[in-house]
Amino acid sequence: MAIVLGPHQYGKAETRLVRVVRTGERHELVDLNVSTALRGHFDAAHLEGDQHNVLPTDTQKNTAYVWAKRFVPDPIESWALSLARHFVDDVEPVTGARVEVERLGWTRADVGGAPHRHTFLRTGPEVRTAAVTVAADGVHVVQGFKDLVILKSTGSAFRDFLVDDLTTLQPTDDRIMATSLTVRWRLSDPAADTDWNALHASVQAVLVERFANLESLALQQTLWHMGKAALEAHPEIAEIRLAAPNKHHFVVDLAPFGEANPNEVFHADDRPYGLIHASAIRDDAPPAGDAWLPFTGLA
Amino acid sequence: MAIVLGPHQYGKAETRLVRVVRTGERHELVDLNVSTALRGHFDAAHLEGDQHNVLPTDTQKNTAYVWAKRFVPDPIESWALSLARHFVDDVEPVTGARVEVERLGWTRADVGGAPHRHTFLRTGPEVRTAAVTVAADGVHVVQGFKDLVILKSTGSAFRDFLVDDLTTLQPTDDRIMATSLTVRWRLSDPAADTDWNALHASVQAVLVERFANLESLALQQTLWHMGKAALEAHPEIAEIRLAAPNKHHFVVDLAPFGEANPNEVFHADDRPYGLIHASAIRDDAPPAGDAWLPFTGLA
Amino acid sequence: MAIVLGPHQYGKAETRLVRVVRTGERHELVDLNVSTALRGHFDAAHLEGDQHNVLPTDTQKNTAYVWAKRFVPDPIESWALSLARHFVDDVEPVTGARVEVERLGWTRADVGGAPHRHTFLRTGPEVRTAAVTVAADGVHVVQGFKDLVILKSTGSAFRDFLVDDLTTLQPTDDRIMATSLTVRWRLSDPAADTDWNALHASVQAVLVERFANLESLALQQTLWHMGKAALEAHPEIAEIRLAAPNKHHFVVDLAPFGEANPNEVFHADDRPYGLIHASAIRDDAPPAGDAWLPFTGLA
Amino acid sequence: MAIVLGPHQYGKAETRLVRVVRTGERHELVDLNVSTALRGHFDAAHLEGDQHNVLPTDTQKNTAYVWAKRFVPDPIESWALSLARHFVDDVEPVTGARVEVERLGWTRADVGGAPHRHTFLRTGPEVRTAAVTVAADGVHVVQGFKDLVILKSTGSAFRDFLVDDLTTLQPTDDRIMATSLTVRWRLSDPAADTDWNALHASVQAVLVERFANLESLALQQTLWHMGKAALEAHPEIAEIRLAAPNKHHFVVDLAPFGEANPNEVFHADDRPYGLIHASAIRDDAPPAGDAWLPFTGLA
Repeated sequence: MAIVLGPHQYGKAETRLVRVVRTGERHELVDLNVSTALRGHFDAAHLEGDQHNVLPTDTQKNTAYVWAKRFVPDPIESWALSLARHFVDDVEPVTGARVEVERLGWTRADVGGAPHRHTFLRTGPEVRTAAVTVAADGVHVVQGFKDLVILKSTGSAFRDFLVDDLTTLQPTDDRIMATSLTVRWRLSDPAADTDWNALHASVQAVLVERFANLESLALQQTLWHMGKAALEAHPEIAEIRLAAPNKHHFVVDLAPFGEANPNEVFHADDRPYGLIHASAIRDDAPPAGDAWLPFTGLA
Repeated sequence: MAIVLGPHQYGKAETRLVRVVRTGERHELVDLNVSTALRGHFDAAHLEGDQHNVLPTDTQKNTAYVWAKRFVPDPIESWALSLARHFVDDVEPVTGARVEVERLGWTRADVGGAPHRHTFLRTGPEVRTAAVTVAADGVHVVQGFKDLVILKSTGSAFRDFLVDDLTTLQPTDDRIMATSLTVRWRLSDPAADTDWNALHASVQAVLVERFANLESLALQQTLWHMGKAALEAHPEIAEIRLAAPNKHHFVVDLAPFGEANPNEVFHADDRPYGLIHASAIRDDAPPAGDAWLPFTGLA
Repeated sequence: MAIVLGPHQYGKAETRLVRVVRTGERHELVDLNVSTALRGHFDAAHLEGDQHNVLPTDTQKNTAYVWAKRFVPDPIESWALSLARHFVDDVEPVTGARVEVERLGWTRADVGGAPHRHTFLRTGPEVRTAAVTVAADGVHVVQGFKDLVILKSTGSAFRDFLVDDLTTLQPTDDRIMATSLTVRWRLSDPAADTDWNALHASVQAVLVERFANLESLALQQTLWHMGKAALEAHPEIAEIRLAAPNKHHFVVDLAPFGEANPNEVFHADDRPYGLIHASAIRDDAPPAGDAWLPFTGLA
Repeated sequence: MAIVLGPHQYGKAETRLVRVVRTGERHELVDLNVSTALRGHFDAAHLEGDQHNVLPTDTQKNTAYVWAKRFVPDPIESWALSLARHFVDDVEPVTGARVEVERLGWTRADVGGAPHRHTFLRTGPEVRTAAVTVAADGVHVVQGFKDLVILKSTGSAFRDFLVDDLTTLQPTDDRIMATSLTVRWRLSDPAADTDWNALHASVQAVLVERFANLESLALQQTLWHMGKAALEAHPEIAEIRLAAPNKHHFVVDLAPFGEANPNEVFHADDRPYGLIHASAIRDDAPPAGDAWLPFTGLA
């Protein structure tokens, strides 16, 4: 009945790294938020305060910068894989590494009708994400994005739901459906020579298309069909997971003021919000290991 | 030596209002954050708690919704003017009204190569702003935007500055210049029949062009030339004010690792940041009154 | 090689619920942020859009309010258990429920030297948390807190760490150690008649004492000894997990200005930060199931 | 009809500075967020990009650190005055300086029933603020705080208000009144030998007392009486300004579920919120100059 050390990892979070690629006068911009986490033979660091096996998080930061110099971090997935493998291969006590990268969006400024060669504007709010894990059970690459805010002003219903004695919601045949999507998908064989940028663009386009064109009976249904469409389009994807807040837009009752309101004026509410998690997976998908989240289970 | 009531105003802040315009199957989306504030004969409300003159902030919220039904809030400036005038003209104790509107950006989702008729994606981070004041001293309309994040990866220097005995900064001939712009401009005669959307788009384009093309010797110089260019392009603008954090991007020293770093790898720092305020004004501009901020001087 | 529905759940997140208990003229305040999530027979809702089994998230919100009326939500753990059991027991398609509660801190205002009977001041930044899961594999209760910001201005070293060729950090015998703690602990037998408030207060006190009094050789060591001390003090706890950003405070180099700086003036940096996860567990702890996080693995 | 340079200033914002005072084994902690802004002969910097008069914002950051070494920044008002005077007196082109300081709250950790000598816990959410301006028109010191969240669960009514044809609000004799206070006050003669810490504590206590004990007929009335009480208690204060969001707590309608709700269960709403600005001033107060906000009018 002893007390023992449980799951643990450590690293440097949110290194804000900007890489400029100067090809003549035309520059490229790669703007990243990089987090690295290491696992391995670190019991003594906890139990006795012995740091001999501990590569400082400051060094992990240095390493991210050096890696960005040596390898342009585009696509982010390949770069994260290279960085994670370095930690596992070259740092003796390290047995597993997780590298998470957010790529912030930028577009060239339009100046005089043409894209400028070294001036950029931030785009958003969505952020492209990658989470790469290199560990004893293999290599996981999870591609994704977060904070993609999407809304359809019609083509969504919610009716025929379960009613208990605390239910007051009225069914509707036409409502605004709005959400801020977080989506992640993992590949069956991430060692494959994948065109990560093309894959990411294609999956995002498929997801947006399904959201737009499916006549929705519930956000659950929409998410499932989005995920399914992504897997149908890309056999290399083993599994996709979607988290979607239902950002409620309530029709304002204008009747007291003598006005009809046929879905024209809405109150966009902050909290509470519905929160739906759905996923689609191939029935022969390899195990997920700890692809989805760090194994400590604390966000 | 009495204690007397000083400046005061009250209103409803951040009413999140979405207006859908349904023209057949093609919808338009107007997504607003509306704040209204009233001034007038409200001394008794403070001194004695007598609310007979006080139109509830809840009513101000209702009014924003009703106004959005009756008048599509596009452009936001005309709509805000109409709403402010209503409060001053129709509510007896009100002598002044300020209406601030943020319009959140949305673009049509691209589905199968075509813009979708009722599905939209949030764009940002920049937000278009308007602040309209109707008061005894006249009418002020201030157009603008906030949080437009812009970066140039070259074409910016900072040298030959004042050096005192606490100065350690080294001059540079080439650096990243990045900022998150807040810009507001007021019109000499806002009663004119202005094409607000066209004006806003034009001013923003002029500002971006100057930021991109001016070989910058300092952010101060860049801001001045941006403001000056906007006034040169639009005689109807009396004054423009710009606030710009200098979002520092530091060149990472890679020498300890045997790597040169000719402005390729940067650390994007959070705090502290430079903060520059600049403005350009016509020498015959009409008085600003309280165009820029609520007269209470508390943000 | 079919595509099938994977893990899924749905619920209402962040219902902001304030419960006032009026005992004569002395009021009590319970300020909560409640999130509920349901699992069960919801396949048809995804696959076919059939909502007959789906209790609306709006109903889950109603239920939280009704439950707060019927049962004062103090302690939050018992209340969350009751609410979760209601969903599993009373709503036929539901096989599992997770209820997460944040309790925001308030203290009575001191007025004229005495605590006021109905006026309160927010305290923070720390927030007490509970996550209760009622599912097929049993009942999990996870107590905890987040955002407890703690700093010691001495009594912390970091030296004798692993040095590779990208390491530039210098060892130190005396530094500021500062963090914002997220800690969660689960009970072996949550059905027991636990005094949740007393347990929470005791664990927090033990954790703070260890942070303060341990001469630290690394944040890893500090976290382990904090967790171990909590388990030693409370046999009913099966496992404790801690996540701690290392909020770096850098000694400012004042030598260029002719000033020594013996750990007196620091720059508190925002990003990047170290991020340490550690945990302590009894070797006979029951399985964690999905106690730590929703089983979908997306935060 | 020329275009000319308007109001401008520049500085370093949000330098996060922690000062530890080591008096034997008992440490004191001063945790600050410092922003400095300079005005003066900077026209050439804007118009021609000539930086010869421009002290870098990096130097302003250095100066804040050096000043924190030389003078313990407690009270923050005296320290900010000293720093502002340095810029005006010692840097030739500078004619005006504004120093804004936020002091973050910390309390000693209670360990074993006693306050620990070098371990501290963050308190909040309220933050103490100071804004000092040294300029041609004299010296202004504005003391204050922000984000003090206070709630009374009874003792507040709102009735007998103005009703127009868009009013639907019902009067109430008993409601929750909650707000997040931002309050600032300026002194008639800040050169006086003021005990800044004692004054700040006293004003805050007076404000809380009035909020708690006044039977409120409206937030406007409460704010006025709070401000008036502060001026009555402290003749050295010339003027006080208060900004208070009315953080609405709506009584949840539980009637559909067969439950009465006599002000027991509330929904704490996020947006919109009422926003009230009020102020109290002596009729012989000296001019405010630009005490309240930077003169550029952009926050």
